[in-house]
Amino acid sequence: MNTYTAPLKDIRFVLKELAGLEAISRLPGCEEATPEVVDAILDEAARFAGGVLAPLKRSGDLEGAHWQDKGVTPPQGFKEAYRQFADNGWSALPCQPDHGGQGLPKLVAAAVSEMWKSANHAFSLCPMLTMGAIEALELVGSPEQKATYLPKMISGEWTGTMNLTESQAGSDLAAIRTRAVPQGDGTYRLFGQKIFITWGDHDMTDNIVHLVLARTPDAPEGVKGISLFVVPKFLVNADGTLGERNDAWCVSIEEKLGIHASPTCVMAFGDNGGAVGTLVGKENEGLKYMFIMMNAARFAVGMEGLANAEGAYQKALGYARERIQSRAIEGSAGSVAIVHHPDVRRMLMTMKSQVEAMRALAYSVAGIHDLAQHHPEAAERARNQALVDLMIPVVKGWLTETGIEVASLGVQIHGGMGYIEETGAAQFLRDVRITTIYEGTTGIQANDLIGRKIAREGGSTVRALLEMMQATRIEAARQEGDGFAAIAHQLGRGIAAAEQAVDYIVGHYNSDVRVVAAGAVPFLKLMGIVCGGWSMARAALAAQARIQAGETDAFHPAKITTARFFAEHLLPQAPALTEVIIGGGASVLALEDEAL
Amino acid sequence: MNTYTAPLKDIRFVLKELAGLEAISRLPGCEEATPEVVDAILDEAARFAGGVLAPLKRSGDLEGAHWQDKGVTPPQGFKEAYRQFADNGWSALPCQPDHGGQGLPKLVAAAVSEMWKSANHAFSLCPMLTMGAIEALELVGSPEQKATYLPKMISGEWTGTMNLTESQAGSDLAAIRTRAVPQGDGTYRLFGQKIFITWGDHDMTDNIVHLVLARTPDAPEGVKGISLFVVPKFLVNADGTLGERNDAWCVSIEEKLGIHASPTCVMAFGDNGGAVGTLVGKENEGLKYMFIMMNAARFAVGMEGLANAEGAYQKALGYARERIQSRAIEGSAGSVAIVHHPDVRRMLMTMKSQVEAMRALAYSVAGIHDLAQHHPEAAERARNQALVDLMIPVVKGWLTETGIEVASLGVQIHGGMGYIEETGAAQFLRDVRITTIYEGTTGIQANDLIGRKIAREGGSTVRALLEMMQATRIEAARQEGDGFAAIAHQLGRGIAAAEQAVDYIVGHYNSDVRVVAAGAVPFLKLMGIVCGGWSMARAALAAQARIQAGETDAFHPAKITTARFFAEHLLPQAPALTEVIIGGGASVLALEDEAL
Repeated sequence: MNTYTAPLKDIRFVLKELAGLEAISRLPGCEEATPEVVDAILDEAARFAGGVLAPLKRSGDLEGAHWQDKGVTPPQGFKEAYRQFADNGWSALPCQPDHGGQGLPKLVAAAVSEMWKSANHAFSLCPMLTMGAIEALELVGSPEQKATYLPKMISGEWTGTMNLTESQAGSDLAAIRTRAVPQGDGTYRLFGQKIFITWGDHDMTDNIVHLVLARTPDAPEGVKGISLFVVPKFLVNADGTLGERNDAWCVSIEEKLGIHASPTCVMAFGDNGGAVGTLVGKENEGLKYMFIMMNAARFAVGMEGLANAEGAYQKALGYARERIQSRAIEGSAGSVAIVHHPDVRRMLMTMKSQVEAMRALAYSVAGIHDLAQHHPEAAERARNQALVDLMIPVVKGWLTETGIEVASLGVQIHGGMGYIEETGAAQFLRDVRITTIYEGTTGIQANDLIGRKIAREGGSTVRALLEMMQATRIEAARQEGDGFAAIAHQLGRGIAAAEQAVDYIVGHYNSDVRVVAAGAVPFLKLMGIVCGGWSMARAALAAQARIQAGETDAFHPAKITTARFFAEHLLPQAPALTEVIIGGGASVLALEDEAL
Repeated sequence: MNTYTAPLKDIRFVLKELAGLEAISRLPGCEEATPEVVDAILDEAARFAGGVLAPLKRSGDLEGAHWQDKGVTPPQGFKEAYRQFADNGWSALPCQPDHGGQGLPKLVAAAVSEMWKSANHAFSLCPMLTMGAIEALELVGSPEQKATYLPKMISGEWTGTMNLTESQAGSDLAAIRTRAVPQGDGTYRLFGQKIFITWGDHDMTDNIVHLVLARTPDAPEGVKGISLFVVPKFLVNADGTLGERNDAWCVSIEEKLGIHASPTCVMAFGDNGGAVGTLVGKENEGLKYMFIMMNAARFAVGMEGLANAEGAYQKALGYARERIQSRAIEGSAGSVAIVHHPDVRRMLMTMKSQVEAMRALAYSVAGIHDLAQHHPEAAERARNQALVDLMIPVVKGWLTETGIEVASLGVQIHGGMGYIEETGAAQFLRDVRITTIYEGTTGIQANDLIGRKIAREGGSTVRALLEMMQATRIEAARQEGDGFAAIAHQLGRGIAAAEQAVDYIVGHYNSDVRVVAAGAVPFLKLMGIVCGGWSMARAALAAQARIQAGETDAFHPAKITTARFFAEHLLPQAPALTEVIIGGGASVLALEDEAL
């Protein structure tokens, strides 16, 4: 039942035509990403995702992870799949070459990760969290820490985790209480309990490298007193062999709505004398390091929204083509496949157009990220970094909210069968439902967007972005045909709605922050929809160029039609959202708490 | 964890101020519904829902129903709860007095059923399906069938089921294949398999009365050859005692996304010689009877959307008041309860305003239904019946789609805890997810709305409804204060958007049915939102009248604020939906199937 075919055609189109793969492959440090290498990687990833990971999706969901005193075991087949994953070198893809990484651009890694996430969201979380830990160590680890941990993590021999949350410290890391006591020998002993630790324990690898936020004895209160520690499951001897079992234990796993195969652990550090760890980077700067890594993690979760949406779309489309039910509304001799019914088509187009818009937007942001890291000119790096910082909450928030909507449409298209777990449509909905929550809820993304990313700089980056959109709109308006006319018209209204909302936010954030913040999530959705419409307009223009160049592939006219659908069905929400943002704040806040 | 407190204050307000309980209690046949009786019923129902049904919600979900060869057993506690339910007379509430029913209006039954559904959706399905079977027998059963089955079903001693779906006949009952072979003695033997049969088997009662759609040997093809049969689990002897076990067996139950405690059965009729049944009503008229009962069933499913939304809101509000996390965005000494954060408030108000709008609308429709059945003047009955017929797909479609949205917001407000099953927030989302599917998907409701209910009569009833809304808008515009100004303004735009969409549908349905049908669901949502805004405007006006009459209860100003929130946050979608309806049809249909 769990087939997944990587949408390589659209992935390649977006990489090449929209995300600038060619230019990126010419950047210093990205030279490995030649067209041939990227092509081969994509083919191989598609095979692995469809052949190895997708078949474990439903069985992993049904079986779930198992907890016992001595540790967690994943569902059947996961250990072998993980071994293959590491052996094939997938862990090393975007890592720096110094410790064995392949040094490929983020853009290529994003495309590959979409496939893992579509095929098996629960599985994909293990390498994703490992990647977060690798990036932290690459960034601020000591030479010794790097030498000890990075080669094994990059090779996939060991995995990594991120230990942030405590029961009283969820969105608010200022409330962290885990203690780290220096031992005078350069090591610390950690004491405290962490919750919601993804893949916090398992037996797929010999060791697990926990990165843990904790407070040293004299640390200041709040976020200024948080430090980052590396705490391995097994201590590592000087010669690299494994030593003693460290005092870091998974004491239970959560029963969740979805991603059952991914153990969500309660981790107890130091219940038996203290978990031995070493400080990463400088004392009291842990939160700063987390913030630097957060862009990557939030981008990755946004990709989960896209990936589940793609999987849900494939499943729903397959069902809609096969399921024969009812005559056509315009009359037909017998029953027809439900793909013929206008409302089923509307749902499929709503899924397809949003999947393609999400992919176009996310890959483009990944490409901008590569420019921000590798462009030879500092000014270009800075300009692109500002764009990435602006777009991260949009990618995280809009792709995940949309991923839920698309997965729910997938259930709906299946009718009664969608509610039966065996079908697999419901699993996409259950799995994707976490994505608007972890790595910062949509509300937190939206506050980040309107506050740190827009109001703080008076809206300069977002206005530059809106100007880029205007250029696309003008280009679209120049094309012939009803499709481009509709695209240009609706994109224009969307841009105007976004401009109006930005003016309002910039103008009122300092004087009336509660009222403005009441419209933060509607604004994030507005930005998502307008960015999506812009991305699809860019896609339509690229497709038009291919057509004008004489290509006859039906993919290109379909892309223009899909962009038109997005413009006509999704973009009209933009002005309505601006109304809510500008006029709706007071009634959000008017009731006393008791009257709710 | 599963507490439920019936929202009696709002229920009473809506019954009295919006749904016309007083006038209904004066109708012939509704005289039992005196204010004192209704008050006592509501209090008692609230106690039973909160005290008996809600505590079984989570345990029933966890344990699920059990299937064995010999039959299905429900989760622990359900049998005892059902016994109490029957003993307390709840089964008999809205039934005709001839066979032991209490003859209370549909309006009162609706309010009571909301409580069952909020407290325990899975449990509530058993009496709901029984009620459907009772109504069918009341409507077209022979005197003998009525005497045999109705007293036991109304008393709750036996339950009932509806057997429509077969694997190839879901939305399309024309494809039904189950055969009914006359035995020459007035009985038939049935052969066939039915799927998705809710509470198709269990041991809570001694007998189960299955109503089954099947074809007689010479029946015409398609929907014109479907007949309705009554097939008891145990045959009933002439003296009313139970006879032989009939050949109707549950051969498996489905593993579903939600409503785990409610067994969804595959029923095999006639695998061992034939299931004995008798014809209900006339041969080949089964579908007509189903259509008559469908209004009741669809209304009841709409109520499930409201009820899950109410339950999800209560849980989220409780959590938001207790959970302390992060400082206030405007600055605060320490962390605050998350109810203080503007986006959490926005989500809570989105939940609350939609819950109240759904309740106001649904109860009003129930009241109109009572007028349609009991008004002494035939013209009034006909006018109200036309309104009910128009509103049923809106109640079914909009309340269920909104119920899912509200339940998902409930998960979101809980953050990470919302994804943990123990919290109970996710169960509302899993349970309510079926409601847009069963008893006709949202797409089917929407096609019914634009076709049978609007285009076929040239839009006369919907235009009469929009005039009623205009009267409310004018009344709102006459009131003082910003709240009413916003309400009147947004309602006016909503009505105009609906009028425009109706004109388009009426004008193009016959010439361009596929294009119009591509906008059917957006139109259903438009109607739901505008009807919701209208209902909240009516509520605000009623609250204003209580304030002007000198009442000082904070409930009334809160109602006006909530109506304003609905107007400012939900109604702005209306013009955007009209754009999609009128302009979006072509791009829904433009792609070839292969290009999807």
